[in-house]
Amino acid sequence: MTFWLCSQLAAWIFLLLIPGLSDGGKLLVVPMDGSHWLSMRQVVEKLTERGHEVVVIIPEVSWQMGVTQAYTVKAYPVSYTLEELDGAFHQYVLSHLKGLPFPQNVLTQYNNSIAVFNIFFSHCKGLFSSKEMMQYLNQSDFDALLTDPVSICGATVANYFSLPFIFFMRGFPCGLHYTATQCPNPVSYVPRLFTFNSDRMTFFQRVENALVAFLELWYCNGFYEDAIKFSSEVLQRDVSLLDLLSSASIWLLRFDYVFEYVRPVMPNMIFVGGINCVQKKPLSKEFEAIVNASGEHGIVVFSLGSMVSEIPMKKAIEITEALGSVPQTVLWRYTGQVPSNLPNNVKLVKWLPQNDLLAHPKTRAFITHGGSHGVYEAICNAVPMVLMPLFGDQMDNAKRVETRGAGLTLNILEMTSKDISDALRAVINDKKYKENIKRLSELHLDRPIHPLDLAVHWVEFVMRHKGAPHLRPAAHELNWIQYHSLDVFAFLLAVVLLSMFISLECCLFCFRRCFHKKGRTSKPTKSKSH
Amino acid sequence: MTFWLCSQLAAWIFLLLIPGLSDGGKLLVVPMDGSHWLSMRQVVEKLTERGHEVVVIIPEVSWQMGVTQAYTVKAYPVSYTLEELDGAFHQYVLSHLKGLPFPQNVLTQYNNSIAVFNIFFSHCKGLFSSKEMMQYLNQSDFDALLTDPVSICGATVANYFSLPFIFFMRGFPCGLHYTATQCPNPVSYVPRLFTFNSDRMTFFQRVENALVAFLELWYCNGFYEDAIKFSSEVLQRDVSLLDLLSSASIWLLRFDYVFEYVRPVMPNMIFVGGINCVQKKPLSKEFEAIVNASGEHGIVVFSLGSMVSEIPMKKAIEITEALGSVPQTVLWRYTGQVPSNLPNNVKLVKWLPQNDLLAHPKTRAFITHGGSHGVYEAICNAVPMVLMPLFGDQMDNAKRVETRGAGLTLNILEMTSKDISDALRAVINDKKYKENIKRLSELHLDRPIHPLDLAVHWVEFVMRHKGAPHLRPAAHELNWIQYHSLDVFAFLLAVVLLSMFISLECCLFCFRRCFHKKGRTSKPTKSKSH
Repeated sequence: MTFWLCSQLAAWIFLLLIPGLSDGGKLLVVPMDGSHWLSMRQVVEKLTERGHEVVVIIPEVSWQMGVTQAYTVKAYPVSYTLEELDGAFHQYVLSHLKGLPFPQNVLTQYNNSIAVFNIFFSHCKGLFSSKEMMQYLNQSDFDALLTDPVSICGATVANYFSLPFIFFMRGFPCGLHYTATQCPNPVSYVPRLFTFNSDRMTFFQRVENALVAFLELWYCNGFYEDAIKFSSEVLQRDVSLLDLLSSASIWLLRFDYVFEYVRPVMPNMIFVGGINCVQKKPLSKEFEAIVNASGEHGIVVFSLGSMVSEIPMKKAIEITEALGSVPQTVLWRYTGQVPSNLPNNVKLVKWLPQNDLLAHPKTRAFITHGGSHGVYEAICNAVPMVLMPLFGDQMDNAKRVETRGAGLTLNILEMTSKDISDALRAVINDKKYKENIKRLSELHLDRPIHPLDLAVHWVEFVMRHKGAPHLRPAAHELNWIQYHSLDVFAFLLAVVLLSMFISLECCLFCFRRCFHKKGRTSKPTKSKSH
Repeated sequence: MTFWLCSQLAAWIFLLLIPGLSDGGKLLVVPMDGSHWLSMRQVVEKLTERGHEVVVIIPEVSWQMGVTQAYTVKAYPVSYTLEELDGAFHQYVLSHLKGLPFPQNVLTQYNNSIAVFNIFFSHCKGLFSSKEMMQYLNQSDFDALLTDPVSICGATVANYFSLPFIFFMRGFPCGLHYTATQCPNPVSYVPRLFTFNSDRMTFFQRVENALVAFLELWYCNGFYEDAIKFSSEVLQRDVSLLDLLSSASIWLLRFDYVFEYVRPVMPNMIFVGGINCVQKKPLSKEFEAIVNASGEHGIVVFSLGSMVSEIPMKKAIEITEALGSVPQTVLWRYTGQVPSNLPNNVKLVKWLPQNDLLAHPKTRAFITHGGSHGVYEAICNAVPMVLMPLFGDQMDNAKRVETRGAGLTLNILEMTSKDISDALRAVINDKKYKENIKRLSELHLDRPIHPLDLAVHWVEFVMRHKGAPHLRPAAHELNWIQYHSLDVFAFLLAVVLLSMFISLECCLFCFRRCFHKKGRTSKPTKSKSH
């Protein structure tokens, strides 16, 4: 903790000492709604603090994003309502809770995710239809653009206004962040998203991984089909998904290798995992009182993330029953109907200061859906986890935590009340979970510069130098055959075969000559002997 | 420059603020002699300053390394003399200046490099034969070991004493730093050492690159044959080169992508290119006087590096003639016989403060052999270069500088006096060279933390955590077939073929049945019809 405070202070001094760095920058931000925005907001706030003119353009209908004093926000009209957005997302979450059989579950989830994405993406049509906004963007002289690649709207805007751009992200379907950066992605030890494999796979897991890698070639084309059509119309040329993505100057990835599996990377990838672990703030009186009243057993923090705050009543009752069986006080972020069996040790709250509670020494465990923000906060604060993944990358995140020995995963569809209480008791009472997460936490926090300062540096770098072309690999100029040297190998094979053929022909020629001579000389000898 | 000073100051404050980080560390350093030691020494000095107990073990016979007040040095006896070492290296350099025809030149240089390496490596035998030194190392409780991988002695010592270790290097033959780290190394755009190709290759350059990559499989086994035999004896098990290297925790690589070609990397590679560009110190009165007297034309700095300070007289006379034709004052580090035609504007010196001179605003150009230290100093200080590469990675370095438009390369064997003066005038008078090196310099110096502080952080990281196992890829546990998924593809192909075979058999079976029935039913019909 002392390390962390000192490094914070030093980084602050470092950034303060360089006033020249923050002079006159003008940044356009095209964010993505939902939990994706939570940590990007911190970068935006820090850049504004450092004197840059930061303009965030958002759709008028939004979950997490809104007008604030901390930076300039400009909104543009969209064709959908908040109810429609909520409805589509609710359907998407429900499709994961229905317990449909395979392959119906996969197909329903895929179709629902496309439906949510298409509503999401339609804000981009609103943006390009807003004459006022387009005129403003056209007249503003931005140095760079910061965006989330998953909603490819930001990349389209950057390409439209020829702005250098920075991507900020954690998860991207189909490993597009590797394909677009020309980063090798070996199928043998880099598990594909949604396989729930680790980096140590059995033979059949590797087969599965290879098959999913094949599927990914098709999956994202379907997912982004409409969006790419729109981008092509706007940019007045046929663009592919990779065209749009591959020109990013810098990829700020919320990765850290205490959590991610080690794999090849590229020099324009900057790792800012744990960027959301801000310095602990004191708890409000209300929460402080609950925590202090928990006694020697301490507390358990329970949240299914910013996107899901209620679950079906049957599940809620099962969970409540389990929570009632542990001696800890459980602080549960929950906005649904209060379960009838709510015990005294479970406190339902509409919102909780998650990072501050996790940082409290009385916190014993964290029950989470496995969103990356929550997992990194648990790692920063060394709190073991019980994971109840629901959708997106959450299952894979849970698998990562489990392989590190820092938590236990439950199947939200099949878990019983006993499973929940067993898992919770295990991560609290079995010392190995605490030891493992403590080790991960120490490794994670031992870094030369805080991820937030690192992200700010690289955004400013792109603003100052109008991109980072020196970090772009020459591989972008090769086609698939050239990249894999198939033409070279074919040529070398042809040379070898030709050499072998010529050598063989020479040998045969010599052999025939010798044989012919021998034949001619032996005949008279034979006839002589007769 | 202000950026740099501020970041230096901030980094210093950062490191100063964290006293806990420097408590009680004990580091063993097994350096490599020659220019390799120059920048590692800075890391060692900084670590000592930060309160660590740093012990550098060196052979009694050495070029660059010696006893100092800055850190603890312990020497062990060796079987060779300084004259033998000098003689072998002299032969090695001479083999590059002889202008022998191909393939004699390559074979001579290869054999001479093996001869130098074997003398170098024999110090390792001295180390393991020294009972006193071995007893000392055995009794000392080191936290980690810092070494240069090229002389694999350090890796052998680390394996022998089971110490976590950090490699510090710039160039390594055969791309061993990529093979040992499981880092993909695409032959299509990553030029192999000694090919002098850039990352944008023609088809036949790619063919050449592929052939050199094949040769590398053989080249280093020959080069390290004796050393590996010795390491196997010492470690009492059969070790391969990769066994020794692959267990390094962290690879501190003196790379920066304003100079290196962009390529895939691994998370345990830390880039500290430009680590040797220390803060500018004021010039001594002697040098200050020469620089001030140079007038409006300024000066040219000329050095062929720390390893070569004299050249054949014929070459020296040609060079001197060229230097006499430019209006700049030339400061030439040269210890050989004074050329008869030495003009007034050329000042021969036995040693020069290279970085301080390059940092002087009156410096117009740098004539260099293309060693990485000098090139980085030129980049830091934005001085365009004329490169006269001699051996090792110098030709490749020169090619890199040339592709960046920051200098011109001369063939030291073929260059005439006119070539030299033309090149020198070009880099001084053609603005594009200065502009290009200035752009590279700005990109290079715009970094979130100074490379020296970054290197210090990661050495301390390994000391604190006894390694960095979380940065080790699972690929180390796969064999070649598994890594490339050849078994998976063979299995999938077998499944596809089997499915096709079964489908075909089913079709044939159905077809036969139909045909058979038809045959049986048609006959009576036919007979009926008759």
